[in-house]
Amino acid sequence: MARVEQVNQKRRGRRAAGEDTRAALVAAAREVFVEKGYDGATVRAIAAKAGVDAAMVNHWFGGKEGLFAQSVLQLPFDPAELLKRLLDGPVEDAGERIVRTFTTVWDATGGGTFAALIRSVTSQPEVAGALKSFLINAIFKNVLAEIGAEQRELRATLCATQMVGLGIVRYVVRFEPLASADADTVVRTIGPNLQRYLTGDLD
Amino acid sequence: MARVEQVNQKRRGRRAAGEDTRAALVAAAREVFVEKGYDGATVRAIAAKAGVDAAMVNHWFGGKEGLFAQSVLQLPFDPAELLKRLLDGPVEDAGERIVRTFTTVWDATGGGTFAALIRSVTSQPEVAGALKSFLINAIFKNVLAEIGAEQRELRATLCATQMVGLGIVRYVVRFEPLASADADTVVRTIGPNLQRYLTGDLD
Repeated sequence: MARVEQVNQKRRGRRAAGEDTRAALVAAAREVFVEKGYDGATVRAIAAKAGVDAAMVNHWFGGKEGLFAQSVLQLPFDPAELLKRLLDGPVEDAGERIVRTFTTVWDATGGGTFAALIRSVTSQPEVAGALKSFLINAIFKNVLAEIGAEQRELRATLCATQMVGLGIVRYVVRFEPLASADADTVVRTIGPNLQRYLTGDLD
Repeated sequence: MARVEQVNQKRRGRRAAGEDTRAALVAAAREVFVEKGYDGATVRAIAAKAGVDAAMVNHWFGGKEGLFAQSVLQLPFDPAELLKRLLDGPVEDAGERIVRTFTTVWDATGGGTFAALIRSVTSQPEVAGALKSFLINAIFKNVLAEIGAEQRELRATLCATQMVGLGIVRYVVRFEPLASADADTVVRTIGPNLQRYLTGDLD
């Protein structure tokens, strides 16, 4: 981000064109992802719809996942970068680390993006499929593979119940005291529950 | 329910009028609950809006909670009855018992009522307040009071994250394998996590 900003500063005259390209890709991506789902959507098709070169997807979003995150999910971060953060530390702390990372990211936007996502999910079934591809396939199944967990599909969906539920209670319906609790409280109370879904005994 | 049905069979000629009263109360309740919130809505105001005697609320719904559950939340059960089932057994099994009860109730309607509820919650902030009054105040805080738990407000909202998240993943976005898992699997995997929120160490 800092690098792109710097480049933009140097090429001040071209910033508008670059932002146009980015906006066109976001708009095209939203349409194609919703129509085809995450797996069915291709970078080539999205770029063609936006009328720009497919290389621009890597340039602006670091690839398909980043474009998805910043178009349909409107997430303010890159999934590959997120995954690296989630895996950066001891396995037995993974639950707390994941809760802290999501809470920090969501808190930074006041939860607005999460609320918008949930509205889209309940009104558009295609967005639910796209959310699954991202949250289950791109994030939790990768985390569980790195951990070496068994029953990854089941564990991934269990993780999703906790993280989606946290997002709804903290940002959408805003039940107190959890809505205003500091990140440490959220991590301390919910982290161990997520940890059980990741590495605990489910039988 | 069986008793009402029997009464209706005896007074076959009056069934239509009774159903009219019930339907008028449900419609009036939806408006008043959404406008005033659960706590602000009075049985008297709802009955007045429906143009019926306030005693009809007890007759048809067993009281304000039942009316709320069957109007705004469109729940196919009576909250007082639900609470009794949730508390009927050893404290250390409460998590599994609650997960089993909710899963059984929601499964019976194919999750349709839960999906409708979530759609209402994300589009109408007032319904979120009403949901809090029901799920937190009428259900989980009563369960926690019976258990004698400390930090009831916090625990109740933590319970809400798990149960709302379960409902969304199983019935709204339908992530597999959890969406098709049998009730025993849901209870075995999620019950212990709910139990920690009810009685476990949160510090």
